[in-house]
Amino acid sequence: MRFDRIWLNARLATLVPGKDGIGVVTDGAVAATGGRIAFAGPMRDLPAGWDSAERIDCAGRWITPGLVDCHTHIVHGGDRAREFEQRLAGATYAEIAQAGGGIVSTVKATRAASEDELVAAALPRLDALIAEGVTTLEAKSGYGLSLADERKSLRAARRLGEKRPIDIVTTFLGAHAMPPEAGDDKDSYIDLVCREMIPALAAEGLADAVDAFCEAIAFSPEQTARVFAAAKAHGLPVKLHADQLSNLQGARLAAEQGALSADHIEYADAAGIAAMAKAGTVAVLLPGAFYFLRETKLPPVDLLRKHGVAIALATDCNPGSSPLTSLLLTMNMGATLFRLTVAECLAGVTREAARALGRQDSIGTLEAGKSCDLAIWDIEHPAELVYRIGFNPLWARIWRGQ
Amino acid sequence: MRFDRIWLNARLATLVPGKDGIGVVTDGAVAATGGRIAFAGPMRDLPAGWDSAERIDCAGRWITPGLVDCHTHIVHGGDRAREFEQRLAGATYAEIAQAGGGIVSTVKATRAASEDELVAAALPRLDALIAEGVTTLEAKSGYGLSLADERKSLRAARRLGEKRPIDIVTTFLGAHAMPPEAGDDKDSYIDLVCREMIPALAAEGLADAVDAFCEAIAFSPEQTARVFAAAKAHGLPVKLHADQLSNLQGARLAAEQGALSADHIEYADAAGIAAMAKAGTVAVLLPGAFYFLRETKLPPVDLLRKHGVAIALATDCNPGSSPLTSLLLTMNMGATLFRLTVAECLAGVTREAARALGRQDSIGTLEAGKSCDLAIWDIEHPAELVYRIGFNPLWARIWRGQ
Ligand SMILES: [Zn+2]
Ligand SMILES: [Zn+2]
Repeated sequence: MRFDRIWLNARLATLVPGKDGIGVVTDGAVAATGGRIAFAGPMRDLPAGWDSAERIDCAGRWITPGLVDCHTHIVHGGDRAREFEQRLAGATYAEIAQAGGGIVSTVKATRAASEDELVAAALPRLDALIAEGVTTLEAKSGYGLSLADERKSLRAARRLGEKRPIDIVTTFLGAHAMPPEAGDDKDSYIDLVCREMIPALAAEGLADAVDAFCEAIAFSPEQTARVFAAAKAHGLPVKLHADQLSNLQGARLAAEQGALSADHIEYADAAGIAAMAKAGTVAVLLPGAFYFLRETKLPPVDLLRKHGVAIALATDCNPGSSPLTSLLLTMNMGATLFRLTVAECLAGVTREAARALGRQDSIGTLEAGKSCDLAIWDIEHPAELVYRIGFNPLWARIWRGQ
Repeated sequence: MRFDRIWLNARLATLVPGKDGIGVVTDGAVAATGGRIAFAGPMRDLPAGWDSAERIDCAGRWITPGLVDCHTHIVHGGDRAREFEQRLAGATYAEIAQAGGGIVSTVKATRAASEDELVAAALPRLDALIAEGVTTLEAKSGYGLSLADERKSLRAARRLGEKRPIDIVTTFLGAHAMPPEAGDDKDSYIDLVCREMIPALAAEGLADAVDAFCEAIAFSPEQTARVFAAAKAHGLPVKLHADQLSNLQGARLAAEQGALSADHIEYADAAGIAAMAKAGTVAVLLPGAFYFLRETKLPPVDLLRKHGVAIALATDCNPGSSPLTSLLLTMNMGATLFRLTVAECLAGVTREAARALGRQDSIGTLEAGKSCDLAIWDIEHPAELVYRIGFNPLWARIWRGQ
């Protein structure tokens, strides 16, 4: 057997489910052929007579799957740094809203930006994540809130994947907030989302999934269900911002609708978690938003464990509630703030994040046949990736075997 | 007037005290001669007929003083990643101590390491901080706990300043913890610190200051006072780990002894803060440890403001309670967790951090005569440096004019 490239003398955290949770292989190797993993395992199990066009000696370094950031709003115009400054200086939310702040300011800036400008603004954020070994990233729309501006945002997201060696998974989040000009008639806006936006964007192949924000300050469970029905009618999987600020039974709704994931879920209850387990819906926890908003209601981690719900972790990179561009730090926050174990954190940004995107068959673990997306780390133990704060020990990043 | 180098078309946050707290200059320039700032201000105020051997166009970027990390334990052997992992997996502190964890494990690893090994271990951490624009860093001993091992640690700290373009300020922290072999006789160990270690290390020029850990689990106020007396007898300024876990009147003690800084001070009371104000003792806040230890007792920020105590922020980089190597993230934590304003955070890692090291006359602001230590940032507003999480917009870093 002849490989294109082989990484030798490595320790592997394959993330293949098993006793230790991260699938440790000492004296391991990973080989790529045609951009896919042709071999991942102990060097002694390499097929007899193997050969490779290129060999890389990892000198004992650790290889994990390339990291997967499965929940971001990385495409947006402007930032909210001045609003952050004003709030620290004592301004109230009402004062900030009056001064044009809040999500409305991001919607305005996103609408005002051209597609090129959205790409240019997102690239430095994307590069920060790539520098930490991220090889797949989900990017939501949701600051356009009109067909043209949502389309522009999703196109910008797709173009990130042309500009950089990374897989971009797009999610249409038209049901994120009310367009500023639309007043309070949420049902009419949801009509627009379901009857115009989803059909058009699905036809254009711009959305890989559909998301909604189910919350008193956003959309009701009934409105969410309508969005999901429209998504399914156009063959798109769904996911949900659920139970972040209150319990609207969003986790249960997501599960009943067969959603890929229910995200945030701080307020989800046992019935909701049980429903998620039954449906195979992944819990995407977002500790960056919990930290930045100084929330105190922790997600129900013990219930998730008890029911065997898969847990993913993501940055939630967005200008209002999580201006975070480090998936390593996200793992530390998952451990420090949510008391996730090291194995849960590592699985949360690889195997389970892949599952939250419906990509568990092609990425997220080191297994033959999957895309050869690797992160190679200058560490002595994988726990360091979770323990350190503001430190990046990435030695090499491989996407599709390169 | 002819400069060595000049940075033109910049926006400056000089951090010179004034109305806005950060000394904003638009259309600014900074010029260096002989490694010092020869000019910092509006370009229109440049002396007539100025010239420069080299000119750098900053294209509107922001220049701040080089950052100062005024409280670190960056020199140490080993890490505590496995202990972190075990604790998340449910191990108790007693179980971890029995398994050889806790500070004793760091003391053992530090003692087992050669000076070269301590330097090599610290360099990646230092490089992470340098990459964010840090130009002065304080490094404490305190994991050797014998004259030979404390000397080795301080030598290693000094050598960091030979290996990299940065000013290293060393602090002797022999009174950090009891040596594992010394049992419970704290007074005898303090004798050793005062009668042997301080005289020897002062004579060798290895310590720029002396620190102690005043806490029930460490040393009493009386023992701390003896350490301070010995330090002063050898001409060394003092600082203190004070009132982190309980109120032992450490802040007041530090102030009464004219300490440069009292650090942590979550539990300090009004009398202690008032004494600090009177003495000019800087409050060094360490949000990384607060975050990592999941503390809930906030430092008395309002009292510090009311009494006009200078507030500095530092990483506290150490393996047990703050494995943090980002001063940018430290600012975000200062704002998010402690509700410091943007101006307080920026001053806390520049002007006030310099003051906490007794270096306010030579670094910490952009003023003629000071060392030309600059951080140049690719941002639209200084608030971005505090607002973003896990993002490094450093464009250039200048140390001593280079
Ligand atoms: Zn989100
Ligand atoms: Zn400390």
